[in-house]
Amino acid sequence: MRLVTFCGSIRSGSLNRKLLAQAIEVLRPQAELDHAELRDVPLPIYDGDIETATGVPEPARLLADRIAAADGLVLASPEYNNSIPGALKNAIDWMSRLRPHQPFRGKPILLIGASPGPFGAIRSQMALRQVMTSLLAILVPNQVAVPHADQAFEPDGRLKDPKTRGALEKACAELLRLAAAFPRQA
Amino acid sequence: MRLVTFCGSIRSGSLNRKLLAQAIEVLRPQAELDHAELRDVPLPIYDGDIETATGVPEPARLLADRIAAADGLVLASPEYNNSIPGALKNAIDWMSRLRPHQPFRGKPILLIGASPGPFGAIRSQMALRQVMTSLLAILVPNQVAVPHADQAFEPDGRLKDPKTRGALEKACAELLRLAAAFPRQA
Amino acid sequence: MRLVTFCGSIRSGSLNRKLLAQAIEVLRPQAELDHAELRDVPLPIYDGDIETATGVPEPARLLADRIAAADGLVLASPEYNNSIPGALKNAIDWMSRLRPHQPFRGKPILLIGASPGPFGAIRSQMALRQVMTSLLAILVPNQVAVPHADQAFEPDGRLKDPKTRGALEKACAELLRLAAAFPRQA
Amino acid sequence: MRLVTFCGSIRSGSLNRKLLAQAIEVLRPQAELDHAELRDVPLPIYDGDIETATGVPEPARLLADRIAAADGLVLASPEYNNSIPGALKNAIDWMSRLRPHQPFRGKPILLIGASPGPFGAIRSQMALRQVMTSLLAILVPNQVAVPHADQAFEPDGRLKDPKTRGALEKACAELLRLAAAFPRQA
Repeated sequence: MRLVTFCGSIRSGSLNRKLLAQAIEVLRPQAELDHAELRDVPLPIYDGDIETATGVPEPARLLADRIAAADGLVLASPEYNNSIPGALKNAIDWMSRLRPHQPFRGKPILLIGASPGPFGAIRSQMALRQVMTSLLAILVPNQVAVPHADQAFEPDGRLKDPKTRGALEKACAELLRLAAAFPRQA
Repeated sequence: MRLVTFCGSIRSGSLNRKLLAQAIEVLRPQAELDHAELRDVPLPIYDGDIETATGVPEPARLLADRIAAADGLVLASPEYNNSIPGALKNAIDWMSRLRPHQPFRGKPILLIGASPGPFGAIRSQMALRQVMTSLLAILVPNQVAVPHADQAFEPDGRLKDPKTRGALEKACAELLRLAAAFPRQA
Repeated sequence: MRLVTFCGSIRSGSLNRKLLAQAIEVLRPQAELDHAELRDVPLPIYDGDIETATGVPEPARLLADRIAAADGLVLASPEYNNSIPGALKNAIDWMSRLRPHQPFRGKPILLIGASPGPFGAIRSQMALRQVMTSLLAILVPNQVAVPHADQAFEPDGRLKDPKTRGALEKACAELLRLAAAFPRQA
Repeated sequence: MRLVTFCGSIRSGSLNRKLLAQAIEVLRPQAELDHAELRDVPLPIYDGDIETATGVPEPARLLADRIAAADGLVLASPEYNNSIPGALKNAIDWMSRLRPHQPFRGKPILLIGASPGPFGAIRSQMALRQVMTSLLAILVPNQVAVPHADQAFEPDGRLKDPKTRGALEKACAELLRLAAAFPRQA
């Protein structure tokens, strides 16, 4: 079992990176993990004219290859203005153009998110579900959205609220179940 | 009455640009129009660390000033992967950071869209409604979504389908009504 | 200025009714209020065949008349399974069939919601925005969603959190502004 | 392999029933099918007070049992006012209350829809995805939305457009794949 964990936040000190670290801790005993960061994937703004001229940029192709080589994906996404950050959507837009196969097709995906506000990036996850559905991903139904995330973690990184921790564990177990059923294609 | 018309597509030969041209033709007799193009607004990917260091880039501030100086906005948006293009969302993300006032607050906005597919960018408009609601815009309820848009225009640019043309005229009239009721603040 | 306040919850002891009571307190000095309750609007399940045979039932017509006679509407909605309760959607479906005018067309509407869970009915409001947009309502962009609502009220009914109270006051002020700009048609 | 096919339209002559008939034709050689109709499930409007007093009504329990006894579900849903019909949402609301297990948990579900309008019930499906996600269903990502459905079928019931037929076949194959991977629990 091999999973990619992908942090969709660029910012240093990201709350989503903290949440993803907790998911990694839960998953590490049960899967080989490959951690990716959006900030390590420098990409121009998507432009169909550029794509026609020079194709999909290499950083998008490399990230897509890593996702394609995994049996599942954990995507931690911040919420900007009630929706997906433009930066993350831009990376997805580039990867969606890859042929013969874009990397999200048939891929089990767990969406998680955190925000300092009261709704925990839940609307960004809803928007991402819409996007990933169009890319034919198989979405873990469980949602992990951490509101007031600036106060949600212990100094050692653990989630304070045992209910949230439990929800994360359950969601990770569900991802493992989907990933085992639909492993990557050789 | 002053309106900004904003093309959210970067691509040359954009179907959304064609649709926006039709809206411009409808609105021109009744308002002073300022046309803006996303491709003329070069912006880096939004990064909170960059913002902290150097603030909102000038192209975003200039576009926001033009929107703030208008009584209303027509935004034509393509649909990528069932949602807002990352490029457009990124520009909105930058503008949303402007203080004391981000430019969409209280602004009457008409969303229009076109796509070569069967659903006419309707899902991108739904996602944009969610974003613009969080930015406290006053949205024209009317929707203009043009499916199969690659076959929707006459060689001279007019919309072939009189029903679509009628829907666009009605939507523009509704924007004018909202913009008259809530003009820009001096 | 005349407003309808409509409680979309049927349940006795509804948290949404409590929240709506607070909105009523805010609005009462500034508008004549007409309070309506979904549980006082007995309706069959919508069925196009019934409609063809006997038209829209009287309780739906009477409620629609009250909404049509107002300059704006406050709608408090619970959230069932991430979306609008079937009961409320059914009442809206019936009213949407009224001709020549369904009552939501051009009507300023403020959506509010409360839930005992962590997300405060925000997803129900998002779903209602989609519905009310299709009915051509003019939506107040401000959102009032009260999470953990079973612990959100003082024994005398006031909202404990001054930020939530402030958000409700702001949202009500915005409804009054929209309703003043777009009064009911005589 | 056992599947429930469920028509969420009440109306006689429903376009969704026609579409579902085509899905049945595709699936019949590969699965035992149990066809259910919303109009055969008479239910009161959901009311928490009624539930407390007398529990979930028998028609909802019987339908839930049939769904629980299947390895997957095809749900054909009309679109009313951009969203799920109240009638269908009401039935889902009742079934969601069943304990220890509501029937949608972990169930593979294919959503399909048809409408006489230009967008083919796509927005109803999007709203249903949100609902079924909260009920922890495993959703087939493929979408089958048939616009202008009043002109989409041959007199013998077949879909005129081979692309739509192909999309339906692909979506059914994907449901079979998910249902095989996650069969009903004994």
